[in-house]
This record gives sequence, C-alpha cells and structure tokens, in this order.
Amino acid sequence: MGYRIAVLGATGAVGREMINVLEEYRIPVDELKLLASARSAGQTVTFCGSEVAVEEAAEDSFGGMDFVLGAVQNPMSVRFAPAIKKSGAVYIDNSSAFRHDPEVPLVVPEINGEDAFAHKGIIANPNCSTIITMVAIGALAKLSPVRTMVASTYQAVSGAGQGGLEELNRQLDDLHEGRTPEAKTFPAQIAMNVLPYIGSYQDNGYTSEEMKLQNEGRKILHLPDLRVSCTCVRVPVMRSHSISVTLRTERKISVEEAKAAIAAFPGAALMPAEADRDWPTPLDTSGQDTVYVGRIREDLTDENGLCLWCCGDQVRKGAASNAVQILKLLVGR
Amino acid sequence: MGYRIAVLGATGAVGREMINVLEEYRIPVDELKLLASARSAGQTVTFCGSEVAVEEAAEDSFGGMDFVLGAVQNPMSVRFAPAIKKSGAVYIDNSSAFRHDPEVPLVVPEINGEDAFAHKGIIANPNCSTIITMVAIGALAKLSPVRTMVASTYQAVSGAGQGGLEELNRQLDDLHEGRTPEAKTFPAQIAMNVLPYIGSYQDNGYTSEEMKLQNEGRKILHLPDLRVSCTCVRVPVMRSHSISVTLRTERKISVEEAKAAIAAFPGAALMPAEADRDWPTPLDTSGQDTVYVGRIREDLTDENGLCLWCCGDQVRKGAASNAVQILKLLVGR
Repeated sequence: MGYRIAVLGATGAVGREMINVLEEYRIPVDELKLLASARSAGQTVTFCGSEVAVEEAAEDSFGGMDFVLGAVQNPMSVRFAPAIKKSGAVYIDNSSAFRHDPEVPLVVPEINGEDAFAHKGIIANPNCSTIITMVAIGALAKLSPVRTMVASTYQAVSGAGQGGLEELNRQLDDLHEGRTPEAKTFPAQIAMNVLPYIGSYQDNGYTSEEMKLQNEGRKILHLPDLRVSCTCVRVPVMRSHSISVTLRTERKISVEEAKAAIAAFPGAALMPAEADRDWPTPLDTSGQDTVYVGRIREDLTDENGLCLWCCGDQVRKGAASNAVQILKLLVGR
Repeated sequence: MGYRIAVLGATGAVGREMINVLEEYRIPVDELKLLASARSAGQTVTFCGSEVAVEEAAEDSFGGMDFVLGAVQNPMSVRFAPAIKKSGAVYIDNSSAFRHDPEVPLVVPEINGEDAFAHKGIIANPNCSTIITMVAIGALAKLSPVRTMVASTYQAVSGAGQGGLEELNRQLDDLHEGRTPEAKTFPAQIAMNVLPYIGSYQDNGYTSEEMKLQNEGRKILHLPDLRVSCTCVRVPVMRSHSISVTLRTERKISVEEAKAAIAAFPGAALMPAEADRDWPTPLDTSGQDTVYVGRIREDLTDENGLCLWCCGDQVRKGAASNAVQILKLLVGR
C-alpha cells in the first residue's frame, strides 16, 4: 500500500526535516531507511512514533526502494547516484550536482510540477533562495514573462546546515559571556554582523550561490534568456531566508494585480489581514511551508518593474518540504 | 583663536559621537555648550579631559555661538532653528526637517562640499544610508552621471538611536535567559530577525526612509532626474549600515575602472590588500569614518550597470562625522 523510502543524509538539518515532513504530510511509508556517513551510523531518529536506526550509506543500500530523498553534499550525491539509478528508485536530490543536467528536471511543484514527470531516475531540488524567490514571483511570471531580476538576499544560518545553526548560537553565547567569537563554519563572525559572501567566486565576480538564482530560475521558469543580478548575504537569523527582489516583466503588472495574483498562488501568501503589519519577517515564516510576500510596489527605475520582499523557511520550503512535495506529486498521479 | 560650538541633543547616540569627533578632529573649541531636553539636563559629558554640564535647550541658548551641531528630531529642530538663525550661528542639522529647503545645502563633503558655502544659516546633514551610499558611489558618479539605482539596505539598530542599541542588547539577553523578547523601539522583534520597514509608508508604497536615497541623492549629486528604488531593512547589527547597490550610469564603467576610482576617492576604500577577504562587513567598519566598498561587478541585467556592496559606521560617517566634516570645511576656508 505504501512506499519504501530512503533518506540519504538523514542526520543533517535538511535530512531530519525531510523525515518530519514525510510524517506530517502523511505520506504512506512501508519502509523508511535512514542513511548517513559512518560517523552518524547507529544514531536513531523518531518517525511516526518508532525509533529508526541510521545505517551507513553504501552502494548496496538502495535495493527495493521506491524513492531516495537526498540531503547530502555534491560529492556524496555524485557517488551514490549511479547505485540509486541501478536500484530503480527515483532519486530526489537536494544537492546542486545534477541541477543543470538536461535529463534531470529541476522542480518547484507550484511552478513547473509537470516537468517532474519527465524524469529519468533523478529529479533535482533547487537552491533554497531560488525556491523561495520562485514561489514569491511565480504568480507574476504566469501573468507576463520575467525579463530581469535584481535581488539581494538575507539568508539564515541554517543554509550552512547544522554547523551554521550551532555557530550563531555559540557566537552569541561567547558575546554574552564576554569571549571573542571564533568563526569556523562562516568566513567571518556572523553574530551581530552580516556577510556578503556565500559560495565561492566565479570568473564574473558573482558567487556560485548568486548565479543559482539566474541559472536555476531559467530552467524552472522555462525562460532561457532570464538575466539576474543577485547579491547573497548571510544574516544572523536562524532558519528563514528573505529576499528583496526587483523584477521587470514583458508587460506592466500593476501593484493591485500583483497582490491579487500572489494571494491566489499556491504556496505563497500575503500577510493575514488580522496582522498588525503587512510585511513579513523571517520569524513569521519559520516552521512552515508558506512563502510570505510583502512590500509590493512599483519599481521607480523601470515602467515594467515591481519591487517586493519575501520570506520563507529555508529548511522546509527551501529544501525538505519542496523535495517531499515533489515525491507527493509523483505518487499522487 | 577657537570656535564657540553648541551641540543640540548632546546626550543621544549621535550627539555624544559629535562631541567625540570634535575632539578627535582637533577642532579648536573655545567654548562647548551642550544642550538637551529638560530630562537630560544636569548630566555631564567629558570633552578634552574636562567635564561639561548639559543644559536644557531654550530659545536664548545660542547667543555668541559660531556653530550649532544639531542631533535632535525634526520637531525640536524646527522649534530651535529660528533662534539659532537669529543668533548668527551656522546650524548644521542632522534632522530631515530642512533637507529639501532650496535655501539649505545638503552636503556630503567628499561629493558636494562646495555647496556648503552657499548656506544662509542652515546646512543639512543627509540621511545615514544616503551618506554611506553616496561616498561609495561618488567616484562613479564623477566618471559618468548615475541614471538609476536599485538598493537594498542592511541597517544597524543605532539608526534608531540609543533606544535601538538598548533594544537589541535587551532582546538578546532575553533570548539567552529564555524570556520572550518585547519590541518597543522597533515594530517587531529585531534579535535573530530582519525587519523590512523603516520610517513610515508614503502614498507610493515606499517608506519615508526609502525615498531619502532618491530625493536626497538628487540634491547631493545635482542629478534632478535620478531615479532610485530602495528597500530599507533593519538587521541585528549594532552600528554600521550596509547597502547592496545596483547602479546604471550614462556610459559603461568597467569593473577595473570602478575599483581604481573608488580606491582613490576620499572617504571610500576597498578592503586592504593584506586582509584575508575583499568584501567588507559592518563589524570591519564600526568606529571609523571610512566607507568600505566591495563585491564590485557587472550588472548582468544592464550593459551600463554595476553592482557593489558598501558598509559604513552609521553613527560616525552616517551622522556625527559628516556633520563635523562640514564644520571643518567651513572653518578651513
């Protein structure tokens, strides 16, 4: 009746959330196999009231599985993808290793869910800031093709995984106790600071993280000529990313039209009418899947432009929930 | 030999820094008069090794003064401006009350210092984010007129004065002790959060703070047609503002040309060559007057565009130091 599902990278921040979301979405699971590196093997994780032991991932771990949810870095993903493919399981991969492979769909279910069904064994989950921005602007892209975007991000420490969450907490404790904070996971102190550098430099002066919004956005929106200038900035926030976006569409979209479209778009929302403000913050959106949008107004520098602000939980919609939503899409048909 | 200088609003974050900067810049001061509201009168402040008592500001406080440095809110500035004018003192005002008066120069010394000499008794100090952005792009504006800017800010809590600094510290203490933080100065929790709302809404959906970059930028750069779309965001940082800027100039400026021009521009700097990174953070720039610029790269959405990131101390160059630099300019001629 149910599915046999493996989670590869089950003990990281995203892997743990995938397990939570599988339970929360009531995905019928006959067998849940939790896989991780040798270092994490032997830990147990609670799923639907039972303790499930974490096993060390190996090439022969995937036999009989229907789906593998991947929450590992690129080298591990590249290593295990052939074994997963051979096993016949569908691999929904949160790493960036296969996102630009023409045979691999890159999917945000609310935007291009149809693409998922063309998979040949692997489906890629997009970058976290990209997913959140896509859900925020998805309604506008359906009204008129997006030509350009200028985006500045305010990215939570969870984007660097469990180590990022621990580093912000540790540095805040250090400051509270009068100690000098040490930077290990991030390239400089993140507590009481912001860091305009995520990923690694590319030849054009952008970082790898910044180019994802353009390059993944093109594939998700089916807009090969989309141009995006993005600045990615880490901020001392635990787990929701925010993005300040200025986008230019082929035809002018009015502010009122944009608000109505975003409010009606699945996965996106304006702040509820009963709230005392109409702009969302990261704290408003943590622990849920909805991307909140606010500050929608005309771009004063371009007649066909709009500015907006959006926030979404990086661990959930930015990673784990989007992956499980892709799985749900496949099993729902 | 020296000058008789009053500081109006001497006990706030900016007023205290003005007093520090007067001493640090070795402005020859014969008399320093410290003025504040009745609530703060009687406090003492150290200046050049002496304790100076704070007096309650009144209409007759300004007789015999050469300069008045204003660090008060608009209503207090409007109230005292006529008395200051009558006294014959030059009023250098950090409030926004007179910034758009055609008789009042709005001055960033590195950009339009000449304008200061046309004053008729009042010179306005620009908005803090505007000053920092202007110093960062000033060199580029001299190479080619700026047509448009899209900016997203990362503004420190010091922008809300002493109350902002205290609120972030208090909320971090609350979180550390397991208490729920209360928001008083800011419209929502600022600790571990970011708030995309500073100032108050205007009819066009922008906030008053956001429109300053366009409207003050036009006056400072002598570019009446400059158009700016700005998003102002408060971040949990103590006292340096950062701004992510995409600007389009009339002619294309190359990245190398931009770097050389910014490095040579007074008040601006690239990160020093011996640093382990070429991007500045708010912590790198706190407690000094230099605006640091980094992440200079081509705008991928416009042939004549450049993107950059800048950071500067909000209390110093964003307010107190710029005001004292205007004073220094006047006494230096």
